[in-house]
Amino acid sequence: MGAVKGKRMPRAVREQQMMDAAVRTFGQRGYRAASMDEIAELAGVSKPLVYLYLNSKEDLFSACIKREADALLEAVRAGVDPSLPADAQLWSGLRAFFVHTAENPDAWSVLHRQARSHGEPFVTEVSGMRDGIVAFVTGLIGAAAREAHSDPALADRDVAGLAQALVGAAESLAGWANDTPDVSAREAAATLMNFAWAGLENLMHARPWTPPAG
Amino acid sequence: MGAVKGKRMPRAVREQQMMDAAVRTFGQRGYRAASMDEIAELAGVSKPLVYLYLNSKEDLFSACIKREADALLEAVRAGVDPSLPADAQLWSGLRAFFVHTAENPDAWSVLHRQARSHGEPFVTEVSGMRDGIVAFVTGLIGAAAREAHSDPALADRDVAGLAQALVGAAESLAGWANDTPDVSAREAAATLMNFAWAGLENLMHARPWTPPAG
Repeated sequence: MGAVKGKRMPRAVREQQMMDAAVRTFGQRGYRAASMDEIAELAGVSKPLVYLYLNSKEDLFSACIKREADALLEAVRAGVDPSLPADAQLWSGLRAFFVHTAENPDAWSVLHRQARSHGEPFVTEVSGMRDGIVAFVTGLIGAAAREAHSDPALADRDVAGLAQALVGAAESLAGWANDTPDVSAREAAATLMNFAWAGLENLMHARPWTPPAG
Repeated sequence: MGAVKGKRMPRAVREQQMMDAAVRTFGQRGYRAASMDEIAELAGVSKPLVYLYLNSKEDLFSACIKREADALLEAVRAGVDPSLPADAQLWSGLRAFFVHTAENPDAWSVLHRQARSHGEPFVTEVSGMRDGIVAFVTGLIGAAAREAHSDPALADRDVAGLAQALVGAAESLAGWANDTPDVSAREAAATLMNFAWAGLENLMHARPWTPPAG
């Protein structure tokens, strides 16, 4: 992240640079240990300017959570093409999730570890993002169930439970993938898609789900 | 929880009563809002006695995390009969997990919400328990893969990823089941077993995994 010191930069651009530096620092050091000095230095601005623009360490952390939560949700939504068959939609959504968390490990650490481990209001803010993802996945699984139009159809409550299971599995795998050397986003997504779509029984008998090319 | 005021009660019994009261209070009020006055009153002892035996609110909370983590891990281990086929082992382990979390919702709230949202040393303590559960599930899935002796067998890394996915799904579902009226432990376990064993594709086509009777 280059330290840009020109004086004519618009406030919005400066703020994004400060938040880039803050996400990196919070994600790598943890919320408590991160210092505003370090964030200001990494952003190439003075510490008073960080306080002037973003008010306090708490407000800066909240702003980072909000920005990164919106970015993750948007990445997942954008990854899903609603014209595709159900399994391809789920696959592309999962892949978008794992690509985003792999490319933004500090942001994922802020959302998944830091925000949840430092009490309110951060826990509530990140819960809101999680609810948004669960709602989106509930919609995908519900659409897949209608597409298969099996009889009896899956009850709404079953669909809600399956969405909780899939989101919990994805959160857990994303942390593991970021902590484990050489696990790629594609591999993490394929592991979860195999698990979710084909099920363990098929995996045990070497009948995995096969991702589409590309 | 009756307030027992007899003076001859052994210290170990008193401590367990204090911890019962503490788990209930921490689970329902949250760590910050829980007061030592309330815990002492619920345990039927004086507040100085709680401090004498368990030292501080932090130490009491740590003791609760440790006790409830051990109890959960033990419940899951005890629920699994290693002489059963792989899917029946997983089913019985999942059912033991959901029965335990449903019967001890305050303990689950302490482990899954409170301990993780109040920083160190609590986050590390509860991570240790999670690692223990992941290791146990990794063993179960690995045994299932060897039992199926498919060729190619699942690589160790695939097994590790699948265990992460299953544990994450179980955590997410347990919170949902406890927050949703009338979702039973058996129903939550069946949802996850369907998801994990049969996979979404089979569920979409009304081919669920069928739990053994009993």
